[in-house]
Amino acid sequence: MIFSSSLLENAVNEFAKLPGIGKKTALRLVLHLIKQDAADVSRFSQTIARMRDEIKYCSRCYNISDKELCNICSNPLRKKEMLCIVENIRDVIAIESTQQFNGVYHVLGGIISPLDGIGPDQLTIDALVNRIAKEEIDEIIFALSPTIQGDTTIYYISKKLKHLNVKITTIARGISFGGELEYADEMTLAKSISNRIPVENFIVSGN
Amino acid sequence: MIFSSSLLENAVNEFAKLPGIGKKTALRLVLHLIKQDAADVSRFSQTIARMRDEIKYCSRCYNISDKELCNICSNPLRKKEMLCIVENIRDVIAIESTQQFNGVYHVLGGIISPLDGIGPDQLTIDALVNRIAKEEIDEIIFALSPTIQGDTTIYYISKKLKHLNVKITTIARGISFGGELEYADEMTLAKSISNRIPVENFIVSGN
Repeated sequence: MIFSSSLLENAVNEFAKLPGIGKKTALRLVLHLIKQDAADVSRFSQTIARMRDEIKYCSRCYNISDKELCNICSNPLRKKEMLCIVENIRDVIAIESTQQFNGVYHVLGGIISPLDGIGPDQLTIDALVNRIAKEEIDEIIFALSPTIQGDTTIYYISKKLKHLNVKITTIARGISFGGELEYADEMTLAKSISNRIPVENFIVSGN
Repeated sequence: MIFSSSLLENAVNEFAKLPGIGKKTALRLVLHLIKQDAADVSRFSQTIARMRDEIKYCSRCYNISDKELCNICSNPLRKKEMLCIVENIRDVIAIESTQQFNGVYHVLGGIISPLDGIGPDQLTIDALVNRIAKEEIDEIIFALSPTIQGDTTIYYISKKLKHLNVKITTIARGISFGGELEYADEMTLAKSISNRIPVENFIVSGN
């Protein structure tokens, strides 16, 4: 792509560095911004810069936060004795958006994956173990990816927590709502049969 | 989507205002930026802000420009007597990227489209007519969309230029390179037959 303006070219190149944004999309975005009010574009760029400068990780759960403690950890209405363990911030947002969970989180920052060079030391597992030893936690719920890596991580952490008196569960795996039985993989279908639930529970839980 | 950080939420909302960027994509982009160096994100936001503040439209051809006159108009190596008329800046970039055109441009800012409320007055047609009357231009080449609106615009401008001694051409319409004949629409196929070109020319022009 050949540009006759270096201001335009630089802006396109900056957008094109973002993941999944090619040169053509970047150009479309920049030409859109050129047509907007200067004040709107200034707010756009300031919001991004401020976000990067001021955002923190919650010192307790490693969720993204505006302050030292995130909104979830500092909310007195959340049940601090119920701890959901997730891989990343995106999973916190996904679970929060269901509005079905009223406990708190712990963000691991990934899952154990030796092939990608991610071992337990790269994750916030030590902090998690300390936290469970110190805080009064009744139950921890693993909400990790249903993969070999996710299962390995659950196994590794569970072993570390064995000596502590805490109930350990994992989110249910089964057929997705709206999914078709014949297209489900064997593993999922097998687990959904062995973990079958009484219809009373099923109706009560609202699914 | 429910966020536990308003810094994050604001940044996602700003990205989600861009065309073709939904909330999920916006979140992916923002989480990517959070992981980058603060200096990189600062450069990103400053480049965008600076682009919007400093970018101009070339006073001669209405192309996007860093200065009063764009790089193309102020380049002494470009043939000022050959003028290519395009709809928008994106078309200038597309033609420049072919590296086959060594003349200058005139950006209309759109094409005549009564249904969208765009008449000749919204476009830079008067400026174009003045320009052709003043400057020494031998040939103008229309490179407009191959649509009814594009054809209307060519017809309207050509009539306005009738009294001036200037050659008027339009870019060739025909079968795209790599396109299959049987899938070409009738209009394109008919035009490509009536505007057939001697094979000598065809080979010389490098297609």
